[in-house]
Amino acid sequence: MKGVALRINPRATIVDITHEIPPGDIRAGAFALAASWRFFPKGTVHVAVVDPGVGSERKAIVVQMESHFFVGPDNGVLSCVLARTTPVERIHLIENSRYWLKPLSHTFHGRDIFAPVAARLSRGVPIQKFGPRLKDIERLSWPEPETTGKRITGEVIYIDRFGNAITNIEIKSIAEANRAAARVFLRGKLLCGIGPLYGSVQEGRPVGVFGSSGFLEIAINGGNAARQLRIKPGTPIAVKYQ
Amino acid sequence: MKGVALRINPRATIVDITHEIPPGDIRAGAFALAASWRFFPKGTVHVAVVDPGVGSERKAIVVQMESHFFVGPDNGVLSCVLARTTPVERIHLIENSRYWLKPLSHTFHGRDIFAPVAARLSRGVPIQKFGPRLKDIERLSWPEPETTGKRITGEVIYIDRFGNAITNIEIKSIAEANRAAARVFLRGKLLCGIGPLYGSVQEGRPVGVFGSSGFLEIAINGGNAARQLRIKPGTPIAVKYQ
Amino acid sequence: MKGVALRINPRATIVDITHEIPPGDIRAGAFALAASWRFFPKGTVHVAVVDPGVGSERKAIVVQMESHFFVGPDNGVLSCVLARTTPVERIHLIENSRYWLKPLSHTFHGRDIFAPVAARLSRGVPIQKFGPRLKDIERLSWPEPETTGKRITGEVIYIDRFGNAITNIEIKSIAEANRAAARVFLRGKLLCGIGPLYGSVQEGRPVGVFGSSGFLEIAINGGNAARQLRIKPGTPIAVKYQ
Repeated sequence: MKGVALRINPRATIVDITHEIPPGDIRAGAFALAASWRFFPKGTVHVAVVDPGVGSERKAIVVQMESHFFVGPDNGVLSCVLARTTPVERIHLIENSRYWLKPLSHTFHGRDIFAPVAARLSRGVPIQKFGPRLKDIERLSWPEPETTGKRITGEVIYIDRFGNAITNIEIKSIAEANRAAARVFLRGKLLCGIGPLYGSVQEGRPVGVFGSSGFLEIAINGGNAARQLRIKPGTPIAVKYQ
Repeated sequence: MKGVALRINPRATIVDITHEIPPGDIRAGAFALAASWRFFPKGTVHVAVVDPGVGSERKAIVVQMESHFFVGPDNGVLSCVLARTTPVERIHLIENSRYWLKPLSHTFHGRDIFAPVAARLSRGVPIQKFGPRLKDIERLSWPEPETTGKRITGEVIYIDRFGNAITNIEIKSIAEANRAAARVFLRGKLLCGIGPLYGSVQEGRPVGVFGSSGFLEIAINGGNAARQLRIKPGTPIAVKYQ
Repeated sequence: MKGVALRINPRATIVDITHEIPPGDIRAGAFALAASWRFFPKGTVHVAVVDPGVGSERKAIVVQMESHFFVGPDNGVLSCVLARTTPVERIHLIENSRYWLKPLSHTFHGRDIFAPVAARLSRGVPIQKFGPRLKDIERLSWPEPETTGKRITGEVIYIDRFGNAITNIEIKSIAEANRAAARVFLRGKLLCGIGPLYGSVQEGRPVGVFGSSGFLEIAINGGNAARQLRIKPGTPIAVKYQ
């Protein structure tokens, strides 16, 4: 992919976001992209190739939003970027094979379609050249936390490389004044409180922290929460506050 | 290695192909290089440092072919690039210590020899400056598949990060018309058919696919074929067609 | 981090040294930095974010030495660079929030503080702009080997990706003439001799080698010494010479 991109735009600056998306894990890819894209310069082309349906009928798309571009399969991997309320400027299908590598493989569209399209975008080819406009994209089924009184029940959506378990419970869902006394429950049992940082508790102890992506994380200070507490994506996490 | 290269050529664009070659696995390194080099721009210098014999008598070489350069130990890691029929333009020994780092270590020639030579090449130092011309390079012992009637017996040569098991059976060895009815055998037992893409079968089912490198791969749709079917490099794979 | 840096300095060349520092392992990070920084061009800004105390009272610092810059938490991760005898040119606290991202998170100062400060340094912002001068930095407790007669007892400080176990025993601690007859002991038992290269012994056999970083390594030719000999950071290693 990098070779193909550099052949088209030798002056491109190519950056790897992560090498640690589990194969085929669209939600993990979507989360990594959602957590990082806003920190890149305007004009950046973000390529997301978590593409278990490569070669099938799934569409390929390019999205423009707030002067950023997003290229990838239309399988939900781009949908976290398009937060629920954000207006997307434009979505186009990638259908114009003129911009693809030939012969096109059935198994590596990252190399054959997404990399060359991204490199063309970085050289200023207008988004409408790649295909017709599309109304909307596939949305990832995103588990919304449920709130009942002063109890929020969510689930783990991502494990980072430190073993921190990031949930779908957003920082704004608990008023700042209520955070200090809030309690985190794992499998129905009280696990820990919420602190401002991983080091809010003694080494080896668990803690809830609203992390750099704005979501509640379950961490163990100096440890690996996912492994030590046997937490996986999908594990339910509840928070009670008073 | 990157620091050394940038000290010599601050304008170099350095790209990592993979961080996942198993230590000392010359064949895996050769395969990764063979699968990627043609996609890079002309003039690219490819550095391959799978070098289990570092510090010993094994030679160091630079190869020029089709306006690409290849730098590495002469242990076979560069030999997949030089496909059986391709004429190699030039091979030179790396012997002129003037272009090396000093003091030279016995354990990291990637840093001390290959990176500085690659950076000099990228700045236009002619290939003959590094040492005398060489007639041929070490060839990797490459297991050729055997064909008996309508049965081809090959073996697995590479496991990619998705767990797909890539064999040495090339797409051209089975006529297109015969692929749909072909059958793949693992350890003498019928495993699956051949389809155009990973999603040609239901999730969790095995399938043979001619992948992006032109070789037959054994995959499990949405799974990890190598782990689930206990396939390793060297595992025999047979294909029968009618 | 890369996005933040490129927003401030779009012409920055960003290089990853390693993706394999175990989470929170300050000593491993310090070792990787110490082994690599001198090979980079003068003016390089080295960012080291092994930062288990992120968000706590630990200081953030920038160090200038021999025309290199170092940015990171003041937890010892920068202290291997400042070898015992080297004069450090300047140390400054990072306190001027004007150069940070806002809002500042409690969990990712790599993104919010260290990346933007590094990018400003690369654009020529003078070191004193980031905060007041500091006399000294936190030093990593570094286990010094003990020498008794012709016996040196040290310990393993780092396992590299090949499974080589790098100790704190420096090459200069054994005169060259004494190396060939030296013997390496693991858990009190004779393990192997010292050779100039990994291939000094038969495949599968252990060997001591003074590696590219100048420290004694325990390796297995073609194998993984750490795994096969169950060596970890902290495992004692002794050398006897005559």
